[in-house]
Amino acid sequence: MINRLAETPKVMLIVMQMDARPEHVEAVVRKIEAHGLKAHPIAGAQRTAIGITGNIGMVERGLFESLPGVLEVIRVSHPYKLVSREFKPPDTVVTVKTPAGGGIRIGGPDLVVIAGPCSVESHEQTLRIARRVQAAGAHMLRGGAFKPRTSPYSFQGLGCEGLEILARVREETGLPVVTEATDIDVLDAVTEYADVVQVGARNMQNYTLLKRVGRCGRPVLLKRGMTATVTELLLSAEYILDQGNPDVILCERGIRTFADHSRNTLDLSAVPAVKRISHLPIIADPSHAAGERAKVFPLSRAAVAVGADGVMVEVHDRPEEALSDGNQALLPDEFDHLMEAMRQLAPVVDRSIPVPVGT
Amino acid sequence: MINRLAETPKVMLIVMQMDARPEHVEAVVRKIEAHGLKAHPIAGAQRTAIGITGNIGMVERGLFESLPGVLEVIRVSHPYKLVSREFKPPDTVVTVKTPAGGGIRIGGPDLVVIAGPCSVESHEQTLRIARRVQAAGAHMLRGGAFKPRTSPYSFQGLGCEGLEILARVREETGLPVVTEATDIDVLDAVTEYADVVQVGARNMQNYTLLKRVGRCGRPVLLKRGMTATVTELLLSAEYILDQGNPDVILCERGIRTFADHSRNTLDLSAVPAVKRISHLPIIADPSHAAGERAKVFPLSRAAVAVGADGVMVEVHDRPEEALSDGNQALLPDEFDHLMEAMRQLAPVVDRSIPVPVGT
Amino acid sequence: MINRLAETPKVMLIVMQMDARPEHVEAVVRKIEAHGLKAHPIAGAQRTAIGITGNIGMVERGLFESLPGVLEVIRVSHPYKLVSREFKPPDTVVTVKTPAGGGIRIGGPDLVVIAGPCSVESHEQTLRIARRVQAAGAHMLRGGAFKPRTSPYSFQGLGCEGLEILARVREETGLPVVTEATDIDVLDAVTEYADVVQVGARNMQNYTLLKRVGRCGRPVLLKRGMTATVTELLLSAEYILDQGNPDVILCERGIRTFADHSRNTLDLSAVPAVKRISHLPIIADPSHAAGERAKVFPLSRAAVAVGADGVMVEVHDRPEEALSDGNQALLPDEFDHLMEAMRQLAPVVDRSIPVPVGT
Amino acid sequence: MINRLAETPKVMLIVMQMDARPEHVEAVVRKIEAHGLKAHPIAGAQRTAIGITGNIGMVERGLFESLPGVLEVIRVSHPYKLVSREFKPPDTVVTVKTPAGGGIRIGGPDLVVIAGPCSVESHEQTLRIARRVQAAGAHMLRGGAFKPRTSPYSFQGLGCEGLEILARVREETGLPVVTEATDIDVLDAVTEYADVVQVGARNMQNYTLLKRVGRCGRPVLLKRGMTATVTELLLSAEYILDQGNPDVILCERGIRTFADHSRNTLDLSAVPAVKRISHLPIIADPSHAAGERAKVFPLSRAAVAVGADGVMVEVHDRPEEALSDGNQALLPDEFDHLMEAMRQLAPVVDRSIPVPVGT
Repeated sequence: MINRLAETPKVMLIVMQMDARPEHVEAVVRKIEAHGLKAHPIAGAQRTAIGITGNIGMVERGLFESLPGVLEVIRVSHPYKLVSREFKPPDTVVTVKTPAGGGIRIGGPDLVVIAGPCSVESHEQTLRIARRVQAAGAHMLRGGAFKPRTSPYSFQGLGCEGLEILARVREETGLPVVTEATDIDVLDAVTEYADVVQVGARNMQNYTLLKRVGRCGRPVLLKRGMTATVTELLLSAEYILDQGNPDVILCERGIRTFADHSRNTLDLSAVPAVKRISHLPIIADPSHAAGERAKVFPLSRAAVAVGADGVMVEVHDRPEEALSDGNQALLPDEFDHLMEAMRQLAPVVDRSIPVPVGT
Repeated sequence: MINRLAETPKVMLIVMQMDARPEHVEAVVRKIEAHGLKAHPIAGAQRTAIGITGNIGMVERGLFESLPGVLEVIRVSHPYKLVSREFKPPDTVVTVKTPAGGGIRIGGPDLVVIAGPCSVESHEQTLRIARRVQAAGAHMLRGGAFKPRTSPYSFQGLGCEGLEILARVREETGLPVVTEATDIDVLDAVTEYADVVQVGARNMQNYTLLKRVGRCGRPVLLKRGMTATVTELLLSAEYILDQGNPDVILCERGIRTFADHSRNTLDLSAVPAVKRISHLPIIADPSHAAGERAKVFPLSRAAVAVGADGVMVEVHDRPEEALSDGNQALLPDEFDHLMEAMRQLAPVVDRSIPVPVGT
Repeated sequence: MINRLAETPKVMLIVMQMDARPEHVEAVVRKIEAHGLKAHPIAGAQRTAIGITGNIGMVERGLFESLPGVLEVIRVSHPYKLVSREFKPPDTVVTVKTPAGGGIRIGGPDLVVIAGPCSVESHEQTLRIARRVQAAGAHMLRGGAFKPRTSPYSFQGLGCEGLEILARVREETGLPVVTEATDIDVLDAVTEYADVVQVGARNMQNYTLLKRVGRCGRPVLLKRGMTATVTELLLSAEYILDQGNPDVILCERGIRTFADHSRNTLDLSAVPAVKRISHLPIIADPSHAAGERAKVFPLSRAAVAVGADGVMVEVHDRPEEALSDGNQALLPDEFDHLMEAMRQLAPVVDRSIPVPVGT
Repeated sequence: MINRLAETPKVMLIVMQMDARPEHVEAVVRKIEAHGLKAHPIAGAQRTAIGITGNIGMVERGLFESLPGVLEVIRVSHPYKLVSREFKPPDTVVTVKTPAGGGIRIGGPDLVVIAGPCSVESHEQTLRIARRVQAAGAHMLRGGAFKPRTSPYSFQGLGCEGLEILARVREETGLPVVTEATDIDVLDAVTEYADVVQVGARNMQNYTLLKRVGRCGRPVLLKRGMTATVTELLLSAEYILDQGNPDVILCERGIRTFADHSRNTLDLSAVPAVKRISHLPIIADPSHAAGERAKVFPLSRAAVAVGADGVMVEVHDRPEEALSDGNQALLPDEFDHLMEAMRQLAPVVDRSIPVPVGT
């Protein structure tokens, strides 16, 4: 019998009255926890709602309906809950702290551009490219220290040395850094150095990793798997939120289809689809989908036009020497051109481009 | 032996000297035709080139190299030829004649918006919607008289009566009309009434139909099949050009993938891919890909941002009564909003929105 | 209002009492036709049922329930009707007439093997291969006279000359012939010469062609489109049955996926899926899916093991000279090997291999 | 410059002369290791070859050509090496040790059937099902203790308690056990209890996990990812072999396509594709692909017919109570029927069904 319930995951949402007092909310939370469940209070402008997760199959609705301050108890039937807009209507804005103490806000009116090399290859290379994209207007630096590679014989990244390089370049430029944690072994190290921890497409359903980044204390950039539906992407985000980390930025990076004119098919319709059913921000990574430099510019522009909260692109000033994916990296001049296009496009889509840090 | 050659289609391109005289070109054309092949002279700004198609496997290059005025003879190895940019570098601009004698140009600096109901249901309905989209700024009217339907029990269109309605509405509004020819049986009727003959996604590889529209004397809107690669789309266009009709407008309308949040996945990367290898214009139809109203606006904007020469969208003022696909049709107010967004976006992508006819 | 009904196709099924007399059935049929609908009587072993198709949206159930001999009136909600097993529970067995007056039965206990060259190239080539596959045990000859080709510059078949060659070879060998009708233009000619008319994958949704073959008076081999769902395949068969032709043989020939180790992915699970929801026979064509000789043998064996009613394979004795698809054709010795495997496998799957005609 | 080499992985293969002595082989191995590379001696019936992996880009071929006993030095250009048939022509036969000291051989003439519940739910349930499938003839027991689940609210397995149950049931029945290691955290525990360690589809590109199972000392069952090409599957196996574990069994379990009549599309053509380019054994798991009981029998039969070395199926005697995937589990009687079909089919495909252990 237990299994039926386990197979039909449900969430309960307790909507408080507009005049409910803080002690009412606390009382509801205590009762939830007393039943071995988790409480997720969501303070809205007008009222508070409290999400419940856990094995709530046998929990009676009546348990909460009679408590003071409770307006309504709703069972949500979608497989995702914490990530759903039904659960939390307002957009989530993830704030990434900058070394100087400021913050970059993703998911609000700002349009954010993340740029940098595919792989960290050396301090000199990373700093050179970081300064270049910063001058052009990038808001964050990307760069892989650990690289998941299809072949065991491909360059797998500089590892911890790469993390240290990123940390130095962050100090030198003031740019916050996003880099990938390829597994739980390296998560602590990545968390120590990164401002945003990336979970790559191949790890989108690595549930152990998802749970750990849910407790890592950093914003998470979660890439859609090449074969993942939007529902599966949201459920993977749900793993992270369920562990207490609300700061998840989704990323569309292309799905696998029969089409052979690009490496993957950038599925831009996922952006409005996510926006409708979830409050989480979503950006696009056109570099990996396109697989070649020339398509990165038009696809970046399209991503912003379709409603993405930002783009992440690869930039390399010597792509012919890049240790990985050189032919999809924009040249610095092309990145200038892209930033210029972003600045022109932003007002058309009711966005603004923040002034980058350190400039 | 014949088969090897047949299996390895090739095209030959004869590049004339810059000072070649018209009689030189004519002499080359005559020699090509004397060998049972087709000649396709392409007059450029500086020089003329002459494409050769047909079974040229056994034709010696030397046959032409010695003729007066010939600079070079090149064998092209791509499976497509007439549609390729290598064959004809400048963009093709297709001109659609308007009833008033003007012309709408697709593939140049203008951004063209085609709008109207999925199906022609009555004269009153078609005229009402046509006047509404015209007032909003649409440049052409779309509407299906013959509807290919997956089920034999679905509404299959008004047929010839629908064509007559379209013709009346064209006279009444001055809007040129695009409508689909579902098979060779109805092609003559469609050609008589339509300004642009549409070949639908299901017919993209109906080669008999492609050959006939290649001789129909009207511009052709060729939709990409749900499972077609870009190469196959271009080869289908090649069938039309090979019959002497250079006025082909391609249309991306979504491909079939595992993704289930939209009916089809609009593959916007096909637009820059086509632009690079072909000179033909390409527009996008987000209505069929999205399958629901709310995604049509963001995807239209993305299509223009990625470089499409225009969009075709479905509009219905009473979608709940529509005989087909009502839930993907924009409401008239939403179409106003879309046109406003197009006008804002056009200068950002170096395009202009022409003033619609009859206004 | 009409549209709602048109958009929700339904079929009504009238189940007669076991002791209903022929005049009762006739009376029901007359009443159906009097309402502008089509009646499809299905005589079963114990009782008769009568399917109704057409725009039955507004037809009241009570219209028939009171007629003598009527047991029950059922509305079927699947989009397909005539093809569904709910509509007609027993398997359809399609009988293909042989020149000598016998019959090959597809869909019953017999396992049928259809073999021959991809294209008819000459009388000598076709007869040579036909005699060879006949000696090995093939039951029918395949060969294309009209070839739909992706490129306009590929070999498009010998056309009517090819049909005459097939007719001669049929007389000389006694093997019935299956060949493709690529469009309505050539359907009459194909119908005159072929024992089974093939509708190819690219034409699976060419509804005009489907309707015509529904009236052609020959069994039809309907190939699944590369991107068609099983529901769409059955709806295309529905078009044919709806025109009065019950003799449809379905054919799984591979779908388009991201997998790149074979040309298409032969979707063998479609066979039990079709068997469960439809009474129509289904065979498999592994040659086109595999795209290479070596996979045809194992996939043929798998197709029979999964429950297909037969296989259709390409055989060529000089594949290096074939005008199309030479590298997927089995060599004659390989076909001997395949027939031997079929004979061993048949009893394991409760099938028998009929002795071929003319041997 | 390093990157070029890293990006173009190569392997070197040293072919020894037929009369090369053991000390010659040892000398070559020492020289390989002295250059920081790994040596993989492969003793064949007639001669020995030695594979080299590592960053061999700058290693000169001449380094080895002059050593005594060396016939030839070959550079292999495929992305996979150790798994390739070119590298090791004879089939790999993986031996799974049974508790009683015997061995089950996968990849040779034997056809192996692995059966059991999706999840270990209790000792009683697991033992009951194990005895039942053993009586029917199953060779190994499957059962998940750790379950990767799309939703964080689904049943995630009994964990270590499940492993202990599996160990008890193994002692009680003598059946070797295959169970999944979902991440590196649990790998040691799984390795302690399991006879074969399974890497699931979602983890096929979890490279850290692959490297660890490459050193775990147990045979590995590696499932193809839902979106993985055959090349990617082989490269993931390469990760395992590269760490010194040659005992990898591949598993086709269905890919993600647009088809909606089954949960995934079982890609049986992958079996002959793998067999041609790799020496590794490959089995099929039709339960997950089909997603429903009725298709498991025909697809199992097809898998064996196409050349798979065995099948793995889910069996549950009370599927309505199963904690996961109950509707794809065969009932015990259906499994009897499947084993009977396997016994009939085996001789047709030149295989034999070994007598199960403990019977």
